[in-house]
Order: sequence, then structure tokens, then C-alpha cells
Amino acid sequence: MSTALAVTYADVARAAEILDGVAHRTPVLTSTRADELADAQVFFKCENFQRIGAFKFRGAYHAISRLSDEQRARGVLAFSSGNHAQAMALAARLLNVKATIVMPHDAPAMKLAATRGYGAEVILYDRNREDREAVAARIVEERGLSLIPPYDHRDVIAGQGTAAKELIEEVGALDYLFVCVGGGGLISGCSIAAKQLAPDCKVIGVEPEAGNDAQRSLRSGEIVDIPVPDTIADGARTQHVGKLVLPILQANVSDILTVSDDQLRSTMRFFAERMKIVVEPTGCLGAAAVLARALPFMGAKVGVIISGGNVDADMFARCITAAEPL
Amino acid sequence: MSTALAVTYADVARAAEILDGVAHRTPVLTSTRADELADAQVFFKCENFQRIGAFKFRGAYHAISRLSDEQRARGVLAFSSGNHAQAMALAARLLNVKATIVMPHDAPAMKLAATRGYGAEVILYDRNREDREAVAARIVEERGLSLIPPYDHRDVIAGQGTAAKELIEEVGALDYLFVCVGGGGLISGCSIAAKQLAPDCKVIGVEPEAGNDAQRSLRSGEIVDIPVPDTIADGARTQHVGKLVLPILQANVSDILTVSDDQLRSTMRFFAERMKIVVEPTGCLGAAAVLARALPFMGAKVGVIISGGNVDADMFARCITAAEPL
Repeated sequence: MSTALAVTYADVARAAEILDGVAHRTPVLTSTRADELADAQVFFKCENFQRIGAFKFRGAYHAISRLSDEQRARGVLAFSSGNHAQAMALAARLLNVKATIVMPHDAPAMKLAATRGYGAEVILYDRNREDREAVAARIVEERGLSLIPPYDHRDVIAGQGTAAKELIEEVGALDYLFVCVGGGGLISGCSIAAKQLAPDCKVIGVEPEAGNDAQRSLRSGEIVDIPVPDTIADGARTQHVGKLVLPILQANVSDILTVSDDQLRSTMRFFAERMKIVVEPTGCLGAAAVLARALPFMGAKVGVIISGGNVDADMFARCITAAEPL
Repeated sequence: MSTALAVTYADVARAAEILDGVAHRTPVLTSTRADELADAQVFFKCENFQRIGAFKFRGAYHAISRLSDEQRARGVLAFSSGNHAQAMALAARLLNVKATIVMPHDAPAMKLAATRGYGAEVILYDRNREDREAVAARIVEERGLSLIPPYDHRDVIAGQGTAAKELIEEVGALDYLFVCVGGGGLISGCSIAAKQLAPDCKVIGVEPEAGNDAQRSLRSGEIVDIPVPDTIADGARTQHVGKLVLPILQANVSDILTVSDDQLRSTMRFFAERMKIVVEPTGCLGAAAVLARALPFMGAKVGVIISGGNVDADMFARCITAAEPL
């Protein structure tokens, strides 16, 4: 069945070669207390320690490196106010390619500064009056740039899959792999790696309660479009999964679950107090489900992708202070 | 000169053998931004990822493992409201030794629970009316227990030195090694390892401005005793360094510097936002001095021991919210 999919394991393996020595091989952490809470052996793949603080670097670097010399000479464009923007900016700089990033005029100053700090040109648009895709399309047309979208792209998906490949190579076959779902690029790539390297592994997606479009899409077999969800998981405020993504979910993903924002806050607190790591709300999606024993694991080997750690100090402080301890 | 000291490198090497496979070999993290701030290549040895969340596990386990069979059969005692208590409780459990921990009656409930959770017997005393050393001495006498103090003890010092041994073995010889100073056990052990493995390495201690007893002791050559210092660095609220410690400082340590509580808060924020790790205030002492370019490093290779990450969520949130970004 997977031969019909847009991305194969060979693509993930090639991405891993390209990323070798460029992306960080992020650590896998464990916690006795997490194992007790989950009734499982839990392995956390810590992409919060990835370059730019999130897994997005993998897909962005892989995608830019696959462009032709001519495309690279003209430059790349992305529209994002989140981790994909910084990932594209850094990857482009490392590959000596000019990056243009379209960002909303009211994006946090820290994110604008970080993106510019990596040498990207930032073009601001007014999100109340302009459509970012139209703005991006116009610039792509005018300047002959290559648009790299955040998730619905073969090389981006293949790059993200290298996170699961590393995890399984390090800890061995898993019974379950939990992955957060926004647009679905990470879970698509990771599911392809998991099905190759641990064929019996059940891949489970997790998204916020407030925005369960991927769950509904998987269950209905059609892409469900929703209003921008109201959740602290800013990386999962997507309105629909990608066109390349849905067939991969259908082929590889056993189920998609949801967790509440309160569960995300408690998981952030758990990570801070017990494991001494800072994880952004979206990065807690998979762990929140696992620590709540969303499934009866009964000692199973469970992998969890922690997608990133980019959360500003004030937001982080508010979340962990408001959280009930697990 | 070092032959006259209470602890030698052979002691540290033996501790490393005993701790192999028991203590975590903690990760060494780097940060481009830290290097820019310090004008150095900075290597952070992350003992916040050590068992019980702090380096103290190293010394406690080593010290208990060195007791005779008869001593181990009778049990061990420690007085501590901090990381040494939990380190002793866990180390004793792993070595199948009964641990008794004397703690103040108003110690945080979380710390009492954690210490009991490791199977230790906790004996509370009223710190307004009783002297903890007298309480401990009475119990030691009554029960025939072996008292393991938190820092002024040969095997404890040798155990703590394994942190620097691992760091230098992983990253190569250092030009500087920055270590926080409370009672001085960590810097004593680490300085012995550093002088053996990187003889040209300058070892620098860092303590809070509010309690510079070690700085004054090193400069005067006599142990200076101070009132309990008012600082957020709770692991450095010691009133004097150990008797075994001072000669080691005199032999091995180039200088002891101080930093303010505001610098500690800003360093906690830097670690959270930039490096995605939770570090307790005391654990930030060395880094705070390095990131403020306390010395003109000019590209030098600088090691920093991050001593621990045990800070409750509310305290952590208050610190990073109040902090100026670096």
C-alpha cells in the first residue's frame, strides 16, 4: 500500500544522509516517573534540542538541499510565523541560499528578530487585510523564488521522518509511536519511518481538543477544514491537514486522539519539574496523551516525539504556574 | 603539592569506576548564543540531568559504597533539606542500605515526599529550637549509623570530581573550568580532576554576592564563617566551606568570583529560552559569570558545571518572569 504514497522510506533514508552532521542527533530521554504514570516504557525524542529549537529544521534543510542549482541561485520563500520560518532562514543560510519569509505584521518581535538574525529577508503583511498565500504567490511570481510550504511537500515530509528513524535506531522497535499533529508533516514522515523499521508499531497522532480536524479527516476519509482553533498549542492551529498527508495518515496511522490545553499545561510542568526540559505547548501533545494512559499500554514500549521548545519565558511561566501537577 | 591533599586523582578515578553504569553520564550542551555572549567556546556539563536532578548523587553513592559491610548493615544518616537528602536516599536504596535523613519540620512537602519516596526514614526537627547537628549526632550514637556529610568528606569530594572528569574526557582539555561553590565539595573534586586531565586549566569558583565566604576564605587562607546568606541560590546558603575543602581550593583554584541574584535569574531565563533546559538558581552560578564575560576569554575553551535543576515550578516561573533577558 505504501508504494502509492507520495513519500517512501527511501526518501526518509536519503534525507537522513543529507542531514547527517548538519541536524543535531537529538537526545532520547526517559523518566521513571513518566513510566509509572503511563504504565509503559516511554522514550522521549527531544526535538526541542534540535537546531532552531524544533524538528522543522530537518524538513526545511532537506527540501532546500534538493532544489536544482538554478532554483537555489534564485532563492526560496516561506510564509510562517512559527518554527518553519526560522528553520527555513537557518537552512537557507547554511546552504548559501537567499530566504524570503512572509510574516504577519504583528508577529512577536522576538520571532521577527530571530528570523532576520539568520539572514532572511522578512516581508510583513497585514493579516486583517491581506491573504498571506496571495502575498506569497505574488512575490514568488515576481522574483522566481521556490516556495517551500511548512508540511504539504514531499521533501519536507521525508526530512521530518528522520526524527522517528533516529529514535527507533537508538532504542529498538517500538509498540507505539505518539506524534503531535498540526498540518501533518511530522507524523507523515515519522509514520513512514516507523512502518519500515518497526512494522508492528502503532502510530498514534495527537491534536488539541479545540482543533480535531485531523481526527475527523482520518475518520471520514476526506480533508476536514475548520476555523483557526483556540488552543495554546500554536503549532497545531492549522485548519486542515495537507493533501499529501491524508493518504499517509490513512495508510499508516492507527488513530488520532485529542488532549485539552489543561493537559498540555500539566505536561509542560511535568517536563520542567521532573525532566528539567522546556517544551512548547504543541510539543507536549503526544506526551500528554501517553502520561494520561490514553491507551492501556501495560508495559509496552512507547516512543514520543517532543516536537519543539520555542515558547517565550512569560508564556512558559504562565503555563506551568496555572498547571495542576500530574 | 597535591600529594598533601585529602583527595587525589586516584580517588576520583576509583569513584568513576564505581559510578559507571549507576550515575548518568550527563550530556554536554553548547549554544552559539552563549559562545557569542561569553566570547568563548562554552561547554555546559548538565548535572540537572543527573539522577535526583543534581550532581549530589555522585558523591552520595560513592561514599556509601565505600563503607564496610558492617557499616552498611547498620545504615547511614544525613542531615539536609536539599539535594544531598534525596541523593543519599536514592543511593542508599540502590545499595540496599537503610537511610535516615534529618530534615527541618518546615521543609517543602515536595522534598519530604521525594525523600520518603526513595524509601528513607525522615526524622523532623524544629529548626527554631533544635540544632540539627546535635539531633543527628544523637541518632548516630543511638543507632550506630554512619554519618555522610554533604561536602566535607573524602569520598563525597572524590565522587563529585567525576563530573569534571567526564566533561574533559568528552570535550578535551579546557582553558577554564567554572564551578559553583556552596560548601565546596563539587569544586574540590572537579579541581582535582581538572588539574590531572588538563594541567593548564584555570579552575574558577563562583558564589552568590550575598555569601562570598569561600572567596574570603581563599583570599585570607582561613575559613571565614558568615551568617546564612540571603540569596535565591539555596544550594549556596552555606556558612563556610569544609575543612578538607580549603587546602584544595588553595592548591587548585585560581579565583572565586561572585554574581548577583539578578544575574542568576537572567541566566535561568537564558537556559530556558535559548537552551530549553531548567536549571536551579545555584546551578546558574558558573554560567552567570561566564555569560557576563567575568574574564576576558577571547575565544578560550570554557567548561561550566551546571550543578542541578531542582526548582519548583512556581519559583522557576517567578525567576524567569522577573529576569532581564541576557
